Amino acid sequence: MTDTQIFDRVAIIGIGLIGSSVAQAIRANGLAGHVACHDADADVRARAAALDIVDSMHDDLAGAVTDADMVVVATPVGVCGDVAAAMRAHLKPGSIVTDVGSVKGSVITAMSPHIPAGVHLVPGHPVAGTEHSGPESGFAELFQNRFSILTPPPGADSEAVSTLERLWRGMGADVEIMDAEHHDRVLAITSHLPHLIAYTIVATAADLETELEAQPQDDEVVTTREVIKYSAGGFRDFTRIAASDPVMWRDVFLLNKDAVLEMLGRFTEDLTALQRAIRKDDGDALFEMFTRTRDIRRGVIEARQAGRFQYTENGKSSDDDA
Amino acid sequence: MTDTQIFDRVAIIGIGLIGSSVAQAIRANGLAGHVACHDADADVRARAAALDIVDSMHDDLAGAVTDADMVVVATPVGVCGDVAAAMRAHLKPGSIVTDVGSVKGSVITAMSPHIPAGVHLVPGHPVAGTEHSGPESGFAELFQNRFSILTPPPGADSEAVSTLERLWRGMGADVEIMDAEHHDRVLAITSHLPHLIAYTIVATAADLETELEAQPQDDEVVTTREVIKYSAGGFRDFTRIAASDPVMWRDVFLLNKDAVLEMLGRFTEDLTALQRAIRKDDGDALFEMFTRTRDIRRGVIEARQAGRFQYTENGKSSDDDA
Repeated sequence: MTDTQIFDRVAIIGIGLIGSSVAQAIRANGLAGHVACHDADADVRARAAALDIVDSMHDDLAGAVTDADMVVVATPVGVCGDVAAAMRAHLKPGSIVTDVGSVKGSVITAMSPHIPAGVHLVPGHPVAGTEHSGPESGFAELFQNRFSILTPPPGADSEAVSTLERLWRGMGADVEIMDAEHHDRVLAITSHLPHLIAYTIVATAADLETELEAQPQDDEVVTTREVIKYSAGGFRDFTRIAASDPVMWRDVFLLNKDAVLEMLGRFTEDLTALQRAIRKDDGDALFEMFTRTRDIRRGVIEARQAGRFQYTENGKSSDDDA
Repeated sequence: MTDTQIFDRVAIIGIGLIGSSVAQAIRANGLAGHVACHDADADVRARAAALDIVDSMHDDLAGAVTDADMVVVATPVGVCGDVAAAMRAHLKPGSIVTDVGSVKGSVITAMSPHIPAGVHLVPGHPVAGTEHSGPESGFAELFQNRFSILTPPPGADSEAVSTLERLWRGMGADVEIMDAEHHDRVLAITSHLPHLIAYTIVATAADLETELEAQPQDDEVVTTREVIKYSAGGFRDFTRIAASDPVMWRDVFLLNKDAVLEMLGRFTEDLTALQRAIRKDDGDALFEMFTRTRDIRRGVIEARQAGRFQYTENGKSSDDDA
């Protein structure tokens, strides 16, 4: 047992980008004596086992969670409830169950009924990730200097909350605690809406290609080849997040529907105002708005959420503030 | 005179990010014997002179363009016509006039009437840049492995076009030639619409802060502090391009109005469809769309417009494909 060890046994359910990174961060920082893992997909299990990042890989959920002091559910949010129901009978008394989903209200609703008395549900969300998916994409440093938000339900065990907080801090994250509803609104504007918009513009560009195929001689048509070729002009920034995992994001939008639709409504109002300014040649309105948005960027840089930013093609991304 | 020298004298009009980078790239690659410069802003002239990146800095436009073999107009596109009119009487017979604007049709319309017979107008657009502005932000490597698009008007002098092509290749760029109207449509989707959307979502987030000030105790309100704090969830990707120069972008939207409004219309249709899918809980439609957009990202990576990407806080950005 190392000085830093918090748990005898941690179980990770679902070993994609986040689950794999949690496993590697726990091992790199000596936070658990044993990391057990289960993934519903046999192919993913085999790939993760080959990476040698967990101590035991289990074909069944029960095998992974049995005797675990901490269970980290790192599946798409849409199946968190089913996972909770399936592991219910195997959870160790006094253990903590958490998750890593980008939506918290619906996760609590789905999981809570299946958590037995004496087991502590403390949902969480590390605000970290890359556009890459799968166990191979994970890395131990993903959470360093990132925020991890915990959303303990009313009446949650304070010791369980502080133990989970220790886990995240041990992996290098800063921890914030807020209620689930507030989390879901904050993330709707900072993460969900940006992804929705990025997906849309990339799809809009793809449809231009479809037109090309129908009218190959028409010079008016912009080809996707050109969209890609000249993507350095701004489009590229959108393609990165539009490459994120489709299942994860489908679930996020469906399960944070109200907050996403509200933020989308605000965005559409603002976009319509800008469209009107262009149509009416209102340069002053455009200039005023573009000047205002600069200040937000400065805030992002000052908050050390931007700055020296790197990503590579081989599935690892990180931000190193210089 | 070096082996690589193409011109005795190049004049750069406007020394912001692009003008400064052109000056430094010309010097670094030995492409001209003398780089003269004028900027309408006395403060910018003083700052650029202090950087020691040009051979002569002129308070008046005439002083810079006199005897120049190549004039590079690197002002916001909205003033290209005025610049052409003002320098008309001072242009050297046989010289080439080009620009670097993100819109080409309106630049040709504005500049052409002022270009005397015997002087060659060959508009251009290097698809490169950063979110930073001003002469201090420029660097010699900005155009390396980037596309520079030339849009010679019908009947343009082919020798002038190929000389300008040599200049861009000498600065490390790949050169493409297309007609101005096609350029403006391609850039509307790859650059102008992405910037418009990024400006909008950053403004939408800023408005949430205004609400907070009105209702400081309301937990429902998301603060801009939180928007910034959790920007790693996706929002950050938008703030970068929303920090770009307000004057430049005001001019781009006003001068490429038709193509921008068309692409915006397509985007809004697609966004509305996605909004409807969320409202109707149509997970299949979301999944299908999100899967499709991944392919575009792969194309961007393969085209070497993405990959290893870096930017820093000190005003220099570059893409190095690993």
